[in-house]
Amino acid sequence: MGRLVLLLLLAFLMPGLAIPVPPALKALSNLHLSTSFTSRPSVVMKYSIHYIEQKIDHFGFKNDKTFNQRYLIADQHWRKEGGSILFYTGNEGDIIWFCNNTGFMWDVAEELKAMLVFAEHRYYGQSLPFGADSFRDSRHLNFLTSEQALADFAELIKHLKRTIPGAENQPVIALGGSYGGMLAAWFRMKYPHIVVGALAASAPIWQFEDIVPCGVFMKIVTTDFKRSGPNCSESIQSSWDAINRLTRNGTGMDWLSEALHLCTPLKNAQDVQHLKDWISETWVNLAMVDYPYESNFLQPLPAWPIKVVCQYLKNPNLSDKKLLQNIFQALNVYYNYSGQARCLNMSETSTSSLGSLGWSYQACTEIVMPFCTNGIDDMFEPQPWDLKTFSDECFKQWGVKPRPSWITSMYGGKNISSHTNIIFSNGDLDPWSGGGVTKNITNTLVAIIIPEGAHHLDLRANSAFDPMTVLLARSLEVKYMKQWIRDFYASPRKKH
Amino acid sequence: MGRLVLLLLLAFLMPGLAIPVPPALKALSNLHLSTSFTSRPSVVMKYSIHYIEQKIDHFGFKNDKTFNQRYLIADQHWRKEGGSILFYTGNEGDIIWFCNNTGFMWDVAEELKAMLVFAEHRYYGQSLPFGADSFRDSRHLNFLTSEQALADFAELIKHLKRTIPGAENQPVIALGGSYGGMLAAWFRMKYPHIVVGALAASAPIWQFEDIVPCGVFMKIVTTDFKRSGPNCSESIQSSWDAINRLTRNGTGMDWLSEALHLCTPLKNAQDVQHLKDWISETWVNLAMVDYPYESNFLQPLPAWPIKVVCQYLKNPNLSDKKLLQNIFQALNVYYNYSGQARCLNMSETSTSSLGSLGWSYQACTEIVMPFCTNGIDDMFEPQPWDLKTFSDECFKQWGVKPRPSWITSMYGGKNISSHTNIIFSNGDLDPWSGGGVTKNITNTLVAIIIPEGAHHLDLRANSAFDPMTVLLARSLEVKYMKQWIRDFYASPRKKH
Repeated sequence: MGRLVLLLLLAFLMPGLAIPVPPALKALSNLHLSTSFTSRPSVVMKYSIHYIEQKIDHFGFKNDKTFNQRYLIADQHWRKEGGSILFYTGNEGDIIWFCNNTGFMWDVAEELKAMLVFAEHRYYGQSLPFGADSFRDSRHLNFLTSEQALADFAELIKHLKRTIPGAENQPVIALGGSYGGMLAAWFRMKYPHIVVGALAASAPIWQFEDIVPCGVFMKIVTTDFKRSGPNCSESIQSSWDAINRLTRNGTGMDWLSEALHLCTPLKNAQDVQHLKDWISETWVNLAMVDYPYESNFLQPLPAWPIKVVCQYLKNPNLSDKKLLQNIFQALNVYYNYSGQARCLNMSETSTSSLGSLGWSYQACTEIVMPFCTNGIDDMFEPQPWDLKTFSDECFKQWGVKPRPSWITSMYGGKNISSHTNIIFSNGDLDPWSGGGVTKNITNTLVAIIIPEGAHHLDLRANSAFDPMTVLLARSLEVKYMKQWIRDFYASPRKKH
Repeated sequence: MGRLVLLLLLAFLMPGLAIPVPPALKALSNLHLSTSFTSRPSVVMKYSIHYIEQKIDHFGFKNDKTFNQRYLIADQHWRKEGGSILFYTGNEGDIIWFCNNTGFMWDVAEELKAMLVFAEHRYYGQSLPFGADSFRDSRHLNFLTSEQALADFAELIKHLKRTIPGAENQPVIALGGSYGGMLAAWFRMKYPHIVVGALAASAPIWQFEDIVPCGVFMKIVTTDFKRSGPNCSESIQSSWDAINRLTRNGTGMDWLSEALHLCTPLKNAQDVQHLKDWISETWVNLAMVDYPYESNFLQPLPAWPIKVVCQYLKNPNLSDKKLLQNIFQALNVYYNYSGQARCLNMSETSTSSLGSLGWSYQACTEIVMPFCTNGIDDMFEPQPWDLKTFSDECFKQWGVKPRPSWITSMYGGKNISSHTNIIFSNGDLDPWSGGGVTKNITNTLVAIIIPEGAHHLDLRANSAFDPMTVLLARSLEVKYMKQWIRDFYASPRKKH
């Protein structure tokens, strides 16, 4: 136990995403052109790349060193008169990737006369406080916390307002998805003097301690498979025992390695556990990206990929070998939709990319999210949440101990009703919605539900295949944002 | 320059207060009896002393060490049914001293059915993260910040709610004076899920950057002397040149040392500068504690001490020697009201007590308050605010550099209108009111002015000599607190 949990945590948003991290650039601004590889390939996203010098430690004065934080600006629709600033609170990955996958901001820029800013989260992408040494040990990782990241965002916005003529007296709105959505919400909670509101898409701010049941996440994954084809979740549920039975000996392992076209054959029980974790993670990822159109968020995938997967998983009562041959077909949808893969690589979703390293550390310190399965409410092998084991593994890997209650101390858990102007959007298909805010808390802390939505579908670019519910969600989000902007311009403003 | 500024910063609340700091006690609870040495000596304050294990670093995971934070509890008037918790957010000194000087909390405990909690600020009193080494260098001092202190308070309240039966579902109100008032306000801003409101007495949250003019503080000190006697401020204003003229040679220094009954005679120009700083600080302290009755906050003093002082300072046009003999009489009111002093000790208001050490570090890092004088709007020698010099002295003393804009980034400066339930009380006599909130911001961020009040007079125990305006202020404060308590009990509450 503990293994699945760690893998799941790694999978938060960017499993399998190997981000190359070039050495930190010193150039202060390069104009880049990039075509969106979302569902609207014809949209040209034009942004400039910038770097700001940030304190490595905002919360202590002994270390006065700085690092370069990367951020992107797109201002083609920005208006100095009555405009706004949409600020993406970057999460655990390369900011250009988030920029390319947040078409919503590009789609609403003109309507909101908005400058778009995408801020990279420290310790991800190119924003590495200690360059190549950033992940070396707990001393170098000590400044990787949500609080430091929010302080970076605050200082960046102050910098933009100071240096860009016309920006000073404009309202800033925080936007983010997933962990970035948590950051957007927390940013509004902690720095309401800096952002007038936040759109927190698919932000599981309650996936901590016992605020929600630890099983809710995998239960939603299971429901996604259950509704995507008859006997689909049952087939997956049967597959674990089939794997266990087949891999009792070397012959079985060899057969299974071949049947699943694994790049590296299974050798021992540890490999088999790794296989099961990797398969579980694949189902989780499919639940996250079960979008209504062909997309390439975590992998190139067909529209409604779980439906496609489930076409191979219609009979849970087949022989072990037949069942696992079908499991291969299902996995192949996720890993080989492009048809280019020659074998399936088990290290692909839990890559050792820098992004995953950073997230693994965060999951071992602040972002301690309990997950569990019981094999009854979900289609997985039962695994209780075991903080002790988890903590021991964290200490072994990083030399740090998780503080599971800290996030609640800091950000309030369920007691957040005194805050204002936060939209929490969640898709019912998204397993992360289980830890999200799915009911209005007050009339300015509102929940938007997208019944046919997977992980932050609303933040993606408009598509002809979008279900009506996400179009409605987006238009409601714009309505709230416009209201915040109007309120800002209607109120007297102070200089500091 | 820079010297006066440093001294003034040291003088924030506790100049001249040498706090003996015994080695950290391990006893978890000792019942203490203490008589208030405020204006109501007959009140017996009964509290128990406790310690909580706190993380030395809430904002990083490399250092997992802990220290014992001291706090006091007085629960004789606490009721589990419909009660409340009044939480003093300790500032830069021994918490028992604050407890003894915050009679207001004791006076309202019964009416609010309140448990009183007084939490010691880390690095003060007995709450030393590294024991005797706490002030050794910037590495040991690295965890002395307002953010860490607020996190201590948050964890302490969570601990109390977890461990004291009946406390869990009760509203907590933060109270504090001076820097403690700033902490109370900031605590409500950053942790509204933990405290339902805050009474921030004499809290100069705007005494930063250029939010208020740097001269406002000394201007108010001057006004206090101006209104306390004819020619009083003019006499002080004349005294500086008199000192300068007299101390041009050794004979003059000797004469002056004798005339002022200095314990250590003046030897050189540096001593003379020190003398002037010390005298300035004395006038500042008198302005802070210009209470309407005999008191012993910073020193034993008569009622309205500035009036007493000004009886000696009626003629600014006397000869230098005569004028300075009068200055001695005036200083003697502050330093020798008890009649016990055999000489005046220039190190007495800028003591090297641990409290002052900690505050000096805080003033050199986060709490960077610009002060200046021009000799026109105030009665002091002109000294501009000089950040460069200040910063250099900080680096020399502590090996750290001030970050003057950080507090505004963190706590919002003037842009705090989205917060709720904070009372900012200020006395017009108090020089710190210049950096305080003296006008309502919204109908839940309210200002209370006490025209005859010095430094947080409202937090002191009721006295027969209290001016009507402070009685009104206190009753208004109680009215708001009762409202917050009612609102809390009327609203549905969440567990986390």
